[in-house]
Amino acid sequence: MKWMKISSAANSTVKGIKKLITHTRVCREEGRTIAEGIHLAKELLNRNELIQKVFLREGATKNSEISAILHSLDSLSVPCIELPNSLFNEISPVENSTGIFCEILIPDNTYLNPCEDIVYLDGVQDPGNVGTILRAALASGVKYFAASISSAYFWSPKVLRSAMGAHFQCHFVQVDTLKKLKQQSRLRCLVADARGGKSLYELTWDKSPVLWVFGSEGQGVSDDALQQADSRVFIPINPQVESLNVAMAATVCLFERKRIKDCCSEISAN
Amino acid sequence: MKWMKISSAANSTVKGIKKLITHTRVCREEGRTIAEGIHLAKELLNRNELIQKVFLREGATKNSEISAILHSLDSLSVPCIELPNSLFNEISPVENSTGIFCEILIPDNTYLNPCEDIVYLDGVQDPGNVGTILRAALASGVKYFAASISSAYFWSPKVLRSAMGAHFQCHFVQVDTLKKLKQQSRLRCLVADARGGKSLYELTWDKSPVLWVFGSEGQGVSDDALQQADSRVFIPINPQVESLNVAMAATVCLFERKRIKDCCSEISAN
Repeated sequence: MKWMKISSAANSTVKGIKKLITHTRVCREEGRTIAEGIHLAKELLNRNELIQKVFLREGATKNSEISAILHSLDSLSVPCIELPNSLFNEISPVENSTGIFCEILIPDNTYLNPCEDIVYLDGVQDPGNVGTILRAALASGVKYFAASISSAYFWSPKVLRSAMGAHFQCHFVQVDTLKKLKQQSRLRCLVADARGGKSLYELTWDKSPVLWVFGSEGQGVSDDALQQADSRVFIPINPQVESLNVAMAATVCLFERKRIKDCCSEISAN
Repeated sequence: MKWMKISSAANSTVKGIKKLITHTRVCREEGRTIAEGIHLAKELLNRNELIQKVFLREGATKNSEISAILHSLDSLSVPCIELPNSLFNEISPVENSTGIFCEILIPDNTYLNPCEDIVYLDGVQDPGNVGTILRAALASGVKYFAASISSAYFWSPKVLRSAMGAHFQCHFVQVDTLKKLKQQSRLRCLVADARGGKSLYELTWDKSPVLWVFGSEGQGVSDDALQQADSRVFIPINPQVESLNVAMAATVCLFERKRIKDCCSEISAN
């Protein structure tokens, strides 16, 4: 790595980073984003071709985990930029950072495999929810994702952080609309809708993959999304609770799907 | 309500509120906490005996939801305190508050019904996780909760906010240890542990209620908790993901439990 120090907030590199952190639009346009923290830096060791720059808080090399990460990246020809504490805190995407973040290239992942389940997010705006859904969905075996433009951008620094590395195992399909995604993938479309439809536990399943749709935090799925539904699905819940948070609802649906899949594959294996 | 204005940060009421927001210990000791936002204020309309004081940002009555809430509370003899914008923001428990929070009494809920499931949190430290678990657990039908002292306090302002009103439908059992809770309740103890045990989907269930244990974000359940386990339970996940977040894991377990219960009660009803 090429070590350097920057101490001025007016430096163009620092300004560029600030833009990426503040404006998701800039991440989209430039195909670059910020991966904050030790956990993501470790995940990036396996995808180090994505790393463009490493930023450190002055003195962060005293942290043994950070120093091990830097050791592993030593042969790369990317800049490692030390910032004084105050400047680091000013531009860091989180409060109380451990002292490391990386500028990375957003990998080009538009390959669509219609033989696997896809999760489509229809206006899920909270980056924490989007990240949590990615992590839980990947844990349930889903690897393909798409989203409406009204959803939080998958590669925004906050979503990246909250998914804790799931991104690097996922494929992100770029589509204009759910309608097009359904046409292209030809998958059965299951739309989660707290307002009604069929109980998750009364769906009939076959071996075909499905296209899941989860809606926004406040309003749920849009009318456009409902029009694409082969089945509207609800999770039966205690009526004392108004609704489940979308990340929770998605987790329940996806793990029920996993349970059925695992159970079917066991049956056919016997 | 008794309307008044406070504009000094040195006022003793303001100082008292700051303490409640900053120190969970003070909430525990004084049996009071802060319910922030419109959603919780609406939930409190049904439990208005708990409300001690209402705090408003100057001008917040222009918000129609806040004005409707105040209208419903009008007959109460509690103070409604208007604060100038800067002071309100200084003491508000969240950034970008809608302009209302209430100081409330923490209800005394130590009744233990051993005929229902209980959730015990063993060192779950993140208030957002604790609140999310309360909400998801209540949605799955669980109403009884207990926690180790190392967990985030159920009635801290952050937990209260993140559970979105679930608190007012829940019972919180005060116990010193999981061991005592198990002895008192005599329930079968299922400890969620990502490291091993029995698959969630291979557990045998009967009609008896269970005592669920979920562990801390980093280390999982403690050795003490494991010693109380009648079964250690894991959720089978895609090995590409290290682990599920504790709130997600609890949601998956509790909804699988609900599925089985609902399905058994249908069978016995037929």
